[in-house]
Amino acid sequence: MASSDGYSWTKADGLRPGVPCIGAIQPPSNLESTTDATTDFDVIVVGAGYAGLTAARDTSVAGLKVLLLEARDRIGGRSWSSNIDGYPYEMGGTWVYWGQAAVWREIARYGMQDELESSYDFSRGINKFLLASTDGTKSFTHEQEDALMQSCLAKLFNVDGKDGRDALPMPHSAAGRLSASDRRFDGVSVADRVAEIRADLTPDERLCLEGFVLLCSGATLATTSFYEMLHWWALCGHTYEGCVNHLVRFKLRAGQSSFAVRFFGEALATGRLSYALSEPVASIADLDQSDGSGSGSGSGSSVRVTTRSGRTFSAKRVISAVPLNVLADVAFEPPLRAGRAAAAAAGHVNQTVKVHAEVRDRDLRSFTGISYPHNGLVYGFGDGETPAGNTHVVAFGGQHRHFHPEDDIDRTIAEFQGFAPMNVERVVFHNWSRDEFAKGAWFFSAPGFLTSHFDDLRARQGNIFFASSDWASGWRSFIDGAIEEGTRAAASVRADLMGK
Amino acid sequence: MASSDGYSWTKADGLRPGVPCIGAIQPPSNLESTTDATTDFDVIVVGAGYAGLTAARDTSVAGLKVLLLEARDRIGGRSWSSNIDGYPYEMGGTWVYWGQAAVWREIARYGMQDELESSYDFSRGINKFLLASTDGTKSFTHEQEDALMQSCLAKLFNVDGKDGRDALPMPHSAAGRLSASDRRFDGVSVADRVAEIRADLTPDERLCLEGFVLLCSGATLATTSFYEMLHWWALCGHTYEGCVNHLVRFKLRAGQSSFAVRFFGEALATGRLSYALSEPVASIADLDQSDGSGSGSGSGSSVRVTTRSGRTFSAKRVISAVPLNVLADVAFEPPLRAGRAAAAAAGHVNQTVKVHAEVRDRDLRSFTGISYPHNGLVYGFGDGETPAGNTHVVAFGGQHRHFHPEDDIDRTIAEFQGFAPMNVERVVFHNWSRDEFAKGAWFFSAPGFLTSHFDDLRARQGNIFFASSDWASGWRSFIDGAIEEGTRAAASVRADLMGK
Repeated sequence: MASSDGYSWTKADGLRPGVPCIGAIQPPSNLESTTDATTDFDVIVVGAGYAGLTAARDTSVAGLKVLLLEARDRIGGRSWSSNIDGYPYEMGGTWVYWGQAAVWREIARYGMQDELESSYDFSRGINKFLLASTDGTKSFTHEQEDALMQSCLAKLFNVDGKDGRDALPMPHSAAGRLSASDRRFDGVSVADRVAEIRADLTPDERLCLEGFVLLCSGATLATTSFYEMLHWWALCGHTYEGCVNHLVRFKLRAGQSSFAVRFFGEALATGRLSYALSEPVASIADLDQSDGSGSGSGSGSSVRVTTRSGRTFSAKRVISAVPLNVLADVAFEPPLRAGRAAAAAAGHVNQTVKVHAEVRDRDLRSFTGISYPHNGLVYGFGDGETPAGNTHVVAFGGQHRHFHPEDDIDRTIAEFQGFAPMNVERVVFHNWSRDEFAKGAWFFSAPGFLTSHFDDLRARQGNIFFASSDWASGWRSFIDGAIEEGTRAAASVRADLMGK
Repeated sequence: MASSDGYSWTKADGLRPGVPCIGAIQPPSNLESTTDATTDFDVIVVGAGYAGLTAARDTSVAGLKVLLLEARDRIGGRSWSSNIDGYPYEMGGTWVYWGQAAVWREIARYGMQDELESSYDFSRGINKFLLASTDGTKSFTHEQEDALMQSCLAKLFNVDGKDGRDALPMPHSAAGRLSASDRRFDGVSVADRVAEIRADLTPDERLCLEGFVLLCSGATLATTSFYEMLHWWALCGHTYEGCVNHLVRFKLRAGQSSFAVRFFGEALATGRLSYALSEPVASIADLDQSDGSGSGSGSGSSVRVTTRSGRTFSAKRVISAVPLNVLADVAFEPPLRAGRAAAAAAGHVNQTVKVHAEVRDRDLRSFTGISYPHNGLVYGFGDGETPAGNTHVVAFGGQHRHFHPEDDIDRTIAEFQGFAPMNVERVVFHNWSRDEFAKGAWFFSAPGFLTSHFDDLRARQGNIFFASSDWASGWRSFIDGAIEEGTRAAASVRADLMGK
């Protein structure tokens, strides 16, 4: 199985679009006819990322008749892996942790607790943190790295004398409108906040701090909401150790797509899931103009979904799992309400560049590095060992010195050298910025965005529910948040249709 | 609604058995006949604690016909709350946290994220940590308390130079047999380990350390497995701050029973749940002697459940959510396999005494305290403010200087004075040691128990699945672990009966 998404490069083969993916489901659809479907569904789920997969699974398991429509030729959305020569490269969302409730519940439910492995192996070679700036490269032990990161991040978030603990004690609140305190922090950017504390930061701390923030937001310091960064910090337990554990430590040995297919398979096994991949949705028309909220009308089909290929499907309810940055590309009728339309027009700011290199240098397995502010790849580290015995290095850039890896592969390889010299044999990546079904990586908000739009994004609109990690209340931006949102949407649809 | 479980005492009313509880479901059964049921069920769930509730909910939602049998007159098992004069007293399992995946997933799913409140309010009066020993009482700021606890616990768990991080990096492993390293730590008690590090502990650290361990295990230092304590520490992220957050910080504003009824209500709404409270099970007979594992036979009823009142029910599968310490009180036919029978005979060692006091002293809202080794209540703190403006103090004792609170209420009140003088107006508690359906509080293991019995306890036996927090792989002993186990059992039954 292969997807047309993603790129791989080797010296022998050059740059090639498309990579293997077990999430490229075969057959691509189980619908019986290629003409307009006459079947009425209980619910149509648009989008087969983790939000859509969870929603489709939970509703089909609960007895509803479900149609899942996916624009791509694979499931997983912004989280998918490609196995190349026996090694999984994670093209998007990667890391999971037992402190992330929604995703860990699923890992435990599928009995995959022992399929985790650590990205880190601090045992050999250049077992150092390399801080490469315009002044040259300094190296630190990983213990020094931890202390440096803890120190600079504590300063960044210490708005309350308690490293942010009092400022944001309950990061999973779903209460709606941001509190006055939250809004105050959402009104400033990380650039603003760094300006406040600049005198307290050593030069190394400042490089580490800014590099880490850019790793998280994929934006620029000026377009990164300080509140959203503080929210990540609070989710991680207000410590750098918590950040490492929650954000970059454990991944699934067989890759994210090995996880996504579990959701899909469970839904399919109910016998109540119809699906079609490579079927982008063009429009969603809610024919029942009354607000379905609490109306309980709900017996007849009231939403019509039309795909770009001209097929139409009807259902009582629709769950849109379309990401924020492409929500405006679907024609809603009636149109998206003003608040949501404004949010979709604004979009989020994350333009992360994530690239993998397979390198011959075994000594790089244990390095971590920041290369900033001059390099296009800001954050990188040894992330695994391939079956060939080579080192797998993963690296991240973003809106800061943004580039498209496929446009100039020599430059892309050169960006890796920004951390340390390395002999690159293979490059693998997905360009999220040019992905028409994502237009960016994981959600990250500019200052003011959440204050203005958070509630609007979470609200239902008539018979349409909106589920995405982009507006999760807890692990927003994460696989966990997608599952949280798919769970929420499925529960709402069940309550509507089954009187739960 | 009221339960016959629990006790309350006031000066005016004296000691009274039975307290209000919204988990005392009305009507107590929805079975149509009081004679033997002729209906065949897909699955019978024995026990309506969180493991049984989760199993009954997940199987009924998925389309199976379910019978839930509960020995008590209420649901919730070892976690239940009583609202008295508008204030919820937690009789057993209480605290929840977003770092506990199974329980937090449910809290988010039921939209209860904003129904948490902090047990702590460090804002007034005796805003101190009181360390009461035979040498008198010392007081510390809460910052000093945190430092003292972090220091002594880090010493306890520092078997690897990394405060236990390397010794137990993956506390959620479900791989089965404990590793050699795990077995080594399970072979010793906390008393053994304290003997090793005694010279490194200050007198205050030793008091704090031992008091904290006894709070966790409800046993004695000699009967507390060092491995199990290390497992708690690892689950909490290897820091005292993590322990506070995960173990004792956040509770549900309306009480645990307000949560349990959500599971029950969702299952009932499927129309596929039959249930009977106050219906203790006497025997479970698996009539299909072949091991159901993978056999897929499963079409006919093969398990017969007989209650103490003589009613019999049949089902294709049974999920036993009976706790370890009372498992031997149910007659299984064929008998429990040797390993499980040995585990049931050994039992776990937690005989926690948990008592609540409503006290007139508003100044005690912000105190925490350890009273050790001379006092029957070892750990206590201000846990809330009642509508009357009084302070709610919760306190814990255990096998160390064990007592039965109802036997001598004056002594019980005197035990509270072991922390600080207080004017006790009300006492509320449940005596778990004399509870015939629990015979102890949450699971805690003696040295060697898990090494010998963990796998046996998790295994299915023919058509019977065993689900309990007592043998959860992650948050064993916790509400979270019960939900983990109920989820696992439901998934197994679905796989068996629905070919998932």
